[in-house]
Amino acid sequence: MESTKKVALVIGAGDATGGAIARRFAKEGYVACVTRREAAKLEPLLEQIRNAGGTAQGFGSDARKEEEVVALIEKIESEIGPIEVLVFNIGANVPCSILEETARKYFKIWEMACLSGFLNAREVARRMVARGRGTILFTGATAGLRGAANFAAFAGAKHALRALAQSMARELGPKNIHVGHIVVDGAIDTEFIRTSFPERYALKDQDGILDPDHIAENYWYLHTQPRDAWTHELDLRPYMERF
Amino acid sequence: MESTKKVALVIGAGDATGGAIARRFAKEGYVACVTRREAAKLEPLLEQIRNAGGTAQGFGSDARKEEEVVALIEKIESEIGPIEVLVFNIGANVPCSILEETARKYFKIWEMACLSGFLNAREVARRMVARGRGTILFTGATAGLRGAANFAAFAGAKHALRALAQSMARELGPKNIHVGHIVVDGAIDTEFIRTSFPERYALKDQDGILDPDHIAENYWYLHTQPRDAWTHELDLRPYMERF
Amino acid sequence: MESTKKVALVIGAGDATGGAIARRFAKEGYVACVTRREAAKLEPLLEQIRNAGGTAQGFGSDARKEEEVVALIEKIESEIGPIEVLVFNIGANVPCSILEETARKYFKIWEMACLSGFLNAREVARRMVARGRGTILFTGATAGLRGAANFAAFAGAKHALRALAQSMARELGPKNIHVGHIVVDGAIDTEFIRTSFPERYALKDQDGILDPDHIAENYWYLHTQPRDAWTHELDLRPYMERF
Amino acid sequence: MESTKKVALVIGAGDATGGAIARRFAKEGYVACVTRREAAKLEPLLEQIRNAGGTAQGFGSDARKEEEVVALIEKIESEIGPIEVLVFNIGANVPCSILEETARKYFKIWEMACLSGFLNAREVARRMVARGRGTILFTGATAGLRGAANFAAFAGAKHALRALAQSMARELGPKNIHVGHIVVDGAIDTEFIRTSFPERYALKDQDGILDPDHIAENYWYLHTQPRDAWTHELDLRPYMERF
Repeated sequence: MESTKKVALVIGAGDATGGAIARRFAKEGYVACVTRREAAKLEPLLEQIRNAGGTAQGFGSDARKEEEVVALIEKIESEIGPIEVLVFNIGANVPCSILEETARKYFKIWEMACLSGFLNAREVARRMVARGRGTILFTGATAGLRGAANFAAFAGAKHALRALAQSMARELGPKNIHVGHIVVDGAIDTEFIRTSFPERYALKDQDGILDPDHIAENYWYLHTQPRDAWTHELDLRPYMERF
Repeated sequence: MESTKKVALVIGAGDATGGAIARRFAKEGYVACVTRREAAKLEPLLEQIRNAGGTAQGFGSDARKEEEVVALIEKIESEIGPIEVLVFNIGANVPCSILEETARKYFKIWEMACLSGFLNAREVARRMVARGRGTILFTGATAGLRGAANFAAFAGAKHALRALAQSMARELGPKNIHVGHIVVDGAIDTEFIRTSFPERYALKDQDGILDPDHIAENYWYLHTQPRDAWTHELDLRPYMERF
Repeated sequence: MESTKKVALVIGAGDATGGAIARRFAKEGYVACVTRREAAKLEPLLEQIRNAGGTAQGFGSDARKEEEVVALIEKIESEIGPIEVLVFNIGANVPCSILEETARKYFKIWEMACLSGFLNAREVARRMVARGRGTILFTGATAGLRGAANFAAFAGAKHALRALAQSMARELGPKNIHVGHIVVDGAIDTEFIRTSFPERYALKDQDGILDPDHIAENYWYLHTQPRDAWTHELDLRPYMERF
Repeated sequence: MESTKKVALVIGAGDATGGAIARRFAKEGYVACVTRREAAKLEPLLEQIRNAGGTAQGFGSDARKEEEVVALIEKIESEIGPIEVLVFNIGANVPCSILEETARKYFKIWEMACLSGFLNAREVARRMVARGRGTILFTGATAGLRGAANFAAFAGAKHALRALAQSMARELGPKNIHVGHIVVDGAIDTEFIRTSFPERYALKDQDGILDPDHIAENYWYLHTQPRDAWTHELDLRPYMERF
């Protein structure tokens, strides 16, 4: 019976972390619904999950467009099952001097890393509040805690996302919705780091960069916390990372 | 000689605070350049400043539009004088449950309270960095420090503005640009508070709401700090305000 | 062979939380070494752990006395096994107006909640650094994040403890010692809350107070995190708690 | 008439900053009461103030001893005048690896930088609350905001002092006592920096270290703020300081 399936929806499963989170929830029997702008690029992840015996479905969807988000949530809820977990995992930094930053890029970084988070979280929260349960997890960054030279756009978006997480936790916690914010601080084991920052990547031998599967474990853990002892925020960083 | 005039530009002089700040700098001999969307509404403020012997000029300008901001700064710099001080003072809260918040409003609050701040600050910073001096002050709020139920949009915008202030301070401080963030915490003596929150307004008799002129004094003070001892952030609240 | 036993040392196992943490690590095969000032009062906990098939040892020790702490750590390390985990869990609030606070009480609250933490953590850290591994976890509180009326002494001690945790994490993380700070925010299901705050305790039916076993789970979880993704700080509170 | 004299009491006028603050208040007509452990060392400061036309009195007093503090405040209040301003300015860092830190030093740093602050502030607050007015200002440091490797003792004491300032502000603000915390971040122009960190000191030519008189100005400024717009915390750092 379709409606008994529990869905874990991962917005932004285009990178290593989003994929790992999807796999983690699929392993526990959740239908991993994963999105990115181009559906085709989700195929390797879907195959991975299915090969491991899990269930997964991919959606090409622009997380910044309200109509697309509304339609996507409606589709998943009506055709697959209740979204028990939402993970919002989009956002990329493009460092730039404040003197050279353009309005267009400043907006786009916010739109991607923050507005998308708002749209998806609000839309899913409406369903969760109606059901009286659910978990919403946001991937944060150190830039969400403090600004830095050349980081005005990204820090702004991540600060705003953290404010969203806090505001939602304070409003929805009493309604039994667990809202969490995970601050990832450090380089992640991704293709991007491997090719762009080879010296950083070399720290992998000493566990100096984050393994996406280890990050994902924390999302699962937060989801399983009993409601008398919920975590709203935790940080994750390699033991050797300066902070 | 026009070019020797020093300009204090106040973006968002539509409210009591912006007006008071403009008056404060005019009193010290700065040409107070003040903006709001409708220039006509600036007349009473301009008259006030001129009657007090100051110099002021009003500009109808939409602080959210890059071209208008670029044109305004260019006009002031070429026709009036170097902008020595920029005060960004726009941003209004419209509380709303996250479940009812619209993408449109979420965006508009950010656009007004944050994007405008970025546009104006970047554009002025380019001139200031070229000159090797200047002061940029942002009006913040408690919502910039922590999220709250029904405050997701405003808290997001104010968090992002604070991230902008921090990022700019860290990048531009060493270039001799003083970037400050003033956290106003409490009700201000405005028409809005008087009519909408009469009980709160009644605290005025006990100094329980902030006097705009007293707020303005701090902007002037920050501007006058010698550069070996600059303040990046300070808070302002009535003695009886809970925090 | 004695020396292959792994020890989890819980300083301050006099309350529900410390006891639950000791049980949690004992369940995983650790020798739970538990302390409080009067050893006799540890008997029920020791019996509980042993009845569940675990190994436990109790020590009457004053955590505020350097010589006692040094002797205790030496004894455990030489007679039982390497301390793989240290949990510091002492500290009680005695609210008081700043106007009435005594030097004696201000000192005692700091001595108990902070100095003890320093003594035990330093002494154990020396062994852990020599071995190149270990976990040190501090029980924090909301008072460690912000001061409050009538909380000067407790907030001071908890702030200082958090500073200790941060300083140790930054120094010892690169030496493979995982230092964590758990911020417990809310009433815990204890005899004290049951008898002193019955209305608060009544929230237990709605999961409105923290279950010590659920708190303990997080200590175990932090200890098991792989070192490429360590958490330094997380908060724990009931879903309905205001924050 | 003795009793109409207003007193500004500076605890810890042994360094450049405390002396500068005393001079600043003396310049405004306050009787500058200054303390350090050895009264004789206060002579140059007293002479300076008197030569400038001010009034000053020195007291040898151990700020860590409750009886001495109580007696000192009583003496000043009965023989000189009401203490309108208290400035607490003691605290020195002695960096040390956590592995080498001694209980004695850990305690002494806290006793000096925090317990003294509590003792003096409480004792003066009692008088101020009875009078219904007064200002209490604490000199903080970046170490009061975050821990750092080799800073466990100093960061702990400064965190605790900040917690004291916050707790007092929240309790005493509504009683018309202005409690402020000034975060000094950077090297100060002192003999110590000149001789111990000559490279740092050389930045003086570029205004890269803090001038004690400029720091002092902020203490005076906070004291003069009208109570509808009080600042609880501000930071001070050279424009070129990294933060």
